[in-house]
Amino acid sequence: MGKLIISKGYAATNDTDPLVPFTFERKEPGVEEVLIDILYCGICHADIHQSKNEYGRTKYPFVPGHEIIGRVHSIGSQVRNFIIGDLVGVGYFINSCGHCVNCVNHEEHFCDNGMMPTHNGVLPDGSTTKGGYSNCIVVKEKYILKVSEKLLLPAVAPLLCAGITTYSAIKHNQIGIGHKVAILGLGGLGHMAVKFARSFGAIVTVLSSGVSKKESAFELGAHNFVHTDDEARSKMEIGSFDFVIDTVSARHDYNKYLNLLRKDGTLVLLGVPPEITPIHPGLLIFRRRKVVGSFIGGIEETQEMLDYCATHNITADVEVIQPDYINTAFERMLKGDVKYRFVIDMSGL
Amino acid sequence: MGKLIISKGYAATNDTDPLVPFTFERKEPGVEEVLIDILYCGICHADIHQSKNEYGRTKYPFVPGHEIIGRVHSIGSQVRNFIIGDLVGVGYFINSCGHCVNCVNHEEHFCDNGMMPTHNGVLPDGSTTKGGYSNCIVVKEKYILKVSEKLLLPAVAPLLCAGITTYSAIKHNQIGIGHKVAILGLGGLGHMAVKFARSFGAIVTVLSSGVSKKESAFELGAHNFVHTDDEARSKMEIGSFDFVIDTVSARHDYNKYLNLLRKDGTLVLLGVPPEITPIHPGLLIFRRRKVVGSFIGGIEETQEMLDYCATHNITADVEVIQPDYINTAFERMLKGDVKYRFVIDMSGL
Repeated sequence: MGKLIISKGYAATNDTDPLVPFTFERKEPGVEEVLIDILYCGICHADIHQSKNEYGRTKYPFVPGHEIIGRVHSIGSQVRNFIIGDLVGVGYFINSCGHCVNCVNHEEHFCDNGMMPTHNGVLPDGSTTKGGYSNCIVVKEKYILKVSEKLLLPAVAPLLCAGITTYSAIKHNQIGIGHKVAILGLGGLGHMAVKFARSFGAIVTVLSSGVSKKESAFELGAHNFVHTDDEARSKMEIGSFDFVIDTVSARHDYNKYLNLLRKDGTLVLLGVPPEITPIHPGLLIFRRRKVVGSFIGGIEETQEMLDYCATHNITADVEVIQPDYINTAFERMLKGDVKYRFVIDMSGL
Repeated sequence: MGKLIISKGYAATNDTDPLVPFTFERKEPGVEEVLIDILYCGICHADIHQSKNEYGRTKYPFVPGHEIIGRVHSIGSQVRNFIIGDLVGVGYFINSCGHCVNCVNHEEHFCDNGMMPTHNGVLPDGSTTKGGYSNCIVVKEKYILKVSEKLLLPAVAPLLCAGITTYSAIKHNQIGIGHKVAILGLGGLGHMAVKFARSFGAIVTVLSSGVSKKESAFELGAHNFVHTDDEARSKMEIGSFDFVIDTVSARHDYNKYLNLLRKDGTLVLLGVPPEITPIHPGLLIFRRRKVVGSFIGGIEETQEMLDYCATHNITADVEVIQPDYINTAFERMLKGDVKYRFVIDMSGL
């Protein structure tokens, strides 16, 4: 049993009340572990879903946060790849079995024995992992990312989830030069999907129910904008896209977007609506379309993504907030009122 | 305006009554067309759906039938590839625009301007195409398949729809040696899927709600059988298949079968339930699974399939019936009581 570190952060204590300041204990780093001082943490929609127990598995007190940027504070005796002061990132998970076929193939996020999420993961002793809405975290070095000093730090934080989720989906589905790609939803995931798809050479259309997002879409690099409530305009796009990247995690109609795909086109699901969603089989069968899911990425691919972003100067567009603004940020996110990711400045803790 | 041929067959005259003997007129073959004496026609589930107007677009009188085997009776003056007496097949469609990207790429079944179905297709003059539950048909030579004399003729008829549908799905999804493939449903499509998947080197499991189908599954070449109502047995297969080929056209739960797929596995939809079908997005996202549709095949691929079947001695298992048994056959099909395709012997007309 290692020594304990007093950590402070914000936690949901039940599925209805606002998050509150919360003090808790973390174990000191083991020999292969790193203690990280957290500088910034992005707010992902999943944080809200889980704070409110919308997936039904939240254990309270729940400290959210899996888009973490920080600096190495101290290291265990066997840590090889990090030294004190290194700028680092932590994403959606902090451990996995390490020996299943997926772990061996650098896809730890699909670990057959279950990867350990950065927050709300159940540890062997029955306690739960506490995420990045806090001043520090202890993580095995194998699950820590190196972060370039050259990018704006708060704008890097969302790359750890919104960034890798869209990057991995685009790479895995071989989306690239000349593909006609629609991005559904212009939030944290959506705005990163626009940046990556554009960067990889695709012709990018933003589909959004907010007319006000038109200008922003073009600023982000989109070539076209379609207001999804404009039936006439939407009709013009039927059968026209190679890919629709669906980043919406609220309930919505997949069939409308399946219909926008050309023959052999692919609907890529990234947002996770908690509800089951009806599809019309004929929309897939008679145009040989596909629906595919994609989910974050492995450590190696996440590092590749961060390096790609450093090389191509890609970051998220963020609004930096203080910790006492978290609950307001949640409310604004539910109204779609953020461009495009809130990032908490932990110096305000 | 060409001369007319008196044709006889069976037709549905409304969405409730049984099919009845029906006499109608067909135009004589044009210069590029062939008049075929129909020998056999398979009964596809779609024939029942459309007879009962379950897709909502049936025009009566409706003469079904798109699994046609016949002999060339006469040819137009510009016909190059067929002579009188040739054994031929006609499948799901008898025309397409010929110049769109899909037609040019030998995927006439996805013709951008709409292929002309063999039955219930609306012709330029407003009349509808009449299918293979009849003694003859007139088709452009480009849409006619060559059929080997060496296979049992009635057993070849179902290859024109059930055969090409499963063959194309298996080829397009590159299902082959060593893949663990589950076939859901053991009807006309399902039993052909077992034969082709086995022939291409896959390890084949039949999933069926009928325990009585176990022995038949092994006879067809399956390596394994799972009774889908056996929860304990089904649970053992969770996450184990590379592909599930879903041939069921009645309403059923896709999520149960998505769950049987391994990470990156594919649910291939071939049966077309008339209802929308709920899927759980998380089942796709967290294991990066796919749902893909597939639909018959182009003329070139259908010919390839027929040639493959002739080489590898593959045909459908059929029960040959007389035309006056069609309505009984429909009833028995709805109860799953056929091994595995009814084929009408048109000499009985």
